[in-house]
Amino acid sequence: MKKEINIGLLGFGTVGSGVAKIIHSHQQDLQYKLGVEVSIKKVLVKNIEKERETVLAKDVFTNRLDEVLSDPSIDIIIEVMGGTTEGKEAIQQALYAGKAVVTANKDVMAEYGQELLRLADEKKCDLFYEASVGGGIPLIRTMEEGLAADRITALTGIINGTTNFILTKMKHENMSYEDALAEATALGFAEADPSADVDGIDAQRKMVILASLAFSTEIKLEDVFVRGLKEIQPGDLELAARFGYTMKMVGSAAKNEDGIEVAVEPVFFQNSHPLASVNNEYNAVYIYGDTVGETMFYGPGAGSLPTATSVTADVVAACRNILLGVNGKRHHAPQYERKIKTNCEMFARYFHRIVVQDEVGVLTKLTGIYSDHGASLASVIQHPDTNDEGAELVFITHKISRQQHLDVLATLKDTPEVLNVLSHYRVEGDES
Amino acid sequence: MKKEINIGLLGFGTVGSGVAKIIHSHQQDLQYKLGVEVSIKKVLVKNIEKERETVLAKDVFTNRLDEVLSDPSIDIIIEVMGGTTEGKEAIQQALYAGKAVVTANKDVMAEYGQELLRLADEKKCDLFYEASVGGGIPLIRTMEEGLAADRITALTGIINGTTNFILTKMKHENMSYEDALAEATALGFAEADPSADVDGIDAQRKMVILASLAFSTEIKLEDVFVRGLKEIQPGDLELAARFGYTMKMVGSAAKNEDGIEVAVEPVFFQNSHPLASVNNEYNAVYIYGDTVGETMFYGPGAGSLPTATSVTADVVAACRNILLGVNGKRHHAPQYERKIKTNCEMFARYFHRIVVQDEVGVLTKLTGIYSDHGASLASVIQHPDTNDEGAELVFITHKISRQQHLDVLATLKDTPEVLNVLSHYRVEGDES
Repeated sequence: MKKEINIGLLGFGTVGSGVAKIIHSHQQDLQYKLGVEVSIKKVLVKNIEKERETVLAKDVFTNRLDEVLSDPSIDIIIEVMGGTTEGKEAIQQALYAGKAVVTANKDVMAEYGQELLRLADEKKCDLFYEASVGGGIPLIRTMEEGLAADRITALTGIINGTTNFILTKMKHENMSYEDALAEATALGFAEADPSADVDGIDAQRKMVILASLAFSTEIKLEDVFVRGLKEIQPGDLELAARFGYTMKMVGSAAKNEDGIEVAVEPVFFQNSHPLASVNNEYNAVYIYGDTVGETMFYGPGAGSLPTATSVTADVVAACRNILLGVNGKRHHAPQYERKIKTNCEMFARYFHRIVVQDEVGVLTKLTGIYSDHGASLASVIQHPDTNDEGAELVFITHKISRQQHLDVLATLKDTPEVLNVLSHYRVEGDES
Repeated sequence: MKKEINIGLLGFGTVGSGVAKIIHSHQQDLQYKLGVEVSIKKVLVKNIEKERETVLAKDVFTNRLDEVLSDPSIDIIIEVMGGTTEGKEAIQQALYAGKAVVTANKDVMAEYGQELLRLADEKKCDLFYEASVGGGIPLIRTMEEGLAADRITALTGIINGTTNFILTKMKHENMSYEDALAEATALGFAEADPSADVDGIDAQRKMVILASLAFSTEIKLEDVFVRGLKEIQPGDLELAARFGYTMKMVGSAAKNEDGIEVAVEPVFFQNSHPLASVNNEYNAVYIYGDTVGETMFYGPGAGSLPTATSVTADVVAACRNILLGVNGKRHHAPQYERKIKTNCEMFARYFHRIVVQDEVGVLTKLTGIYSDHGASLASVIQHPDTNDEGAELVFITHKISRQQHLDVLATLKDTPEVLNVLSHYRVEGDES
């Protein structure tokens, strides 16, 4: 019977140092749960000389990966150093060395997740990645275990805290996009270069992970339609509010008999939708299952201790499996072939905001364009505020295909009376 | 290697028939996940002659429990027949017979949970009870696995769909309590005798289960302070709204160095609190963990298929453990001694609504009563609406002990100028 489980920690940044704190401060509870001591035996860092505030002894720090991986007393490797290539290689080597692996690296899991899970299967080692999506929210485990008996048909999530913070400030404090982004940066929610967040790249990676798991298939980065926040126009959020909607930057995925669709984009949600009231830097994922119906999982999407909580929960799972002798026995290859819907097979309601020449007959011409494309309209509203360029019109469609939506926009742009297609968004919520 | 796992289903009511449906309709997915066929081999019912709409063959139905339990080919017993004594005995006998057990029986788990978990440990059999709280929301699993590395310090939950439905109708459609209850009954959310729901008994049982697990201790039914919905006065919800609060019937539990407090009662939540916007028959549990911070888990709290989804998730977990040969290896006795706080050790803000004689000096006398008891006031408001009896005053306190709250109310009731203490509620949310 093992008396202790040793960990090799790769990386000692925000998440890594959080993991060390939790394993130290919750040691008694962990020992009670597992019946063994859990220790961080080695920590891989770039600079071993750097002064660090930590309870760990100075001699656990090393700058040599092989020193961590070749230590036979180390059972579990935690990869929280980041970097796609280095992260992937470290995980591979750890699995080859027969270690269970816990990672928070969404870039690696989005790009090489299936390959690494196959390798983990082959090497009979656990590979857990709860912290790669949704920070402290136990999403992966919920989908794998809690909803194990259900068939997930749709999921929609606020999975990027920075963009949710920006949109919350814009809505509740009437900030401009630029000011809200500046505040997010000042508070440390946004990186110095915020493009991965605001362009939807971060959410795209997380959606690859979530959708692959939800639908038991291999979703690739290029399968995700991505549209960032930069196209938002002044007035869009106020218009959303006027029609009873809240704009949220979400990842969404759905599956039906035609196939799968995955997207990351700003969407108008009916105010009564549970996601509409998820504010600030919080994340939440709304999951629709065949038999369970609507569920939502809410919590901190980032941060040192929340993310480290998820990493450490994975460590507990890995420890249990090691102690029970069932390490690496639960992975599965995806059950279904990947089949992505075409634009003609994805249906949604759309909001179009258009500036037109303020002339008689324009409205008739425009509604004619919608009907020519078979796009049925739910509402047409003349925007009451003046626009310097011309008259502003808002169209909200019934459910149409993404292709119809694109075709309508293209035709509108080619219509002489249309001065500008200001903005367009998908609309989520019941027809009203 | 086992080729199939057989189930004995005790009870074929709302949940039992839902389980049979899911196991049938998701059979292919279950087989893929588990690598074996999962079959319902026997179903215990009172009346085997009754006509039932089901895919199960007529000969699987029996009215003899021993016939189910003595079948050596049955690996897992699902207890969804209800009843405290019968439920407990069936679970005990199943564990003695060496079967893994899955139950949705909150009454049994609240009253005999610790005893049965100890027996399960002894008999080396799994005992899962995800469906006993929160219907389709995977709460038990989330606390045991997802937050395994954290220390839960507080949880607050809307865990009774009927009372949440009633309060939602009262708030959003201005219904009276009686009308809202009648609609809940008509829609099948409330039982013919709704007392278990509206008096908080159902929530009390669920809180015993949740708090015992959250704090790894043995909470008993008598540890839970319970106050039902019947004391709500006309106008209370409007007053809540006027001050920016929403009334919710919740179970709450918290732990600090002084001990544990558990309560079920209607509470005023600040509108910005995530629980304030959980509406209709939905349930949601807000969990605060030491390191993860705020999380919330939302979904259907009852219903045939949602509850059956949780039961079947437990079945999947039990199957996996059986197939891996680790059935019954994960239970633990509670880690901590039970220590319940006294009324002097529980602190909260309170809302008091009082009818007084409309005379000079009354307000001074009343605020004097608060200060005599060391109860500091956050706001005192003369209710602008007239009351036939006298003037209406609303007091909102800063944090005071429950004992101070009770002492103030007792003194108020004994004060000649006080005509009536109309209502009083705990207030959740930041001091404002």
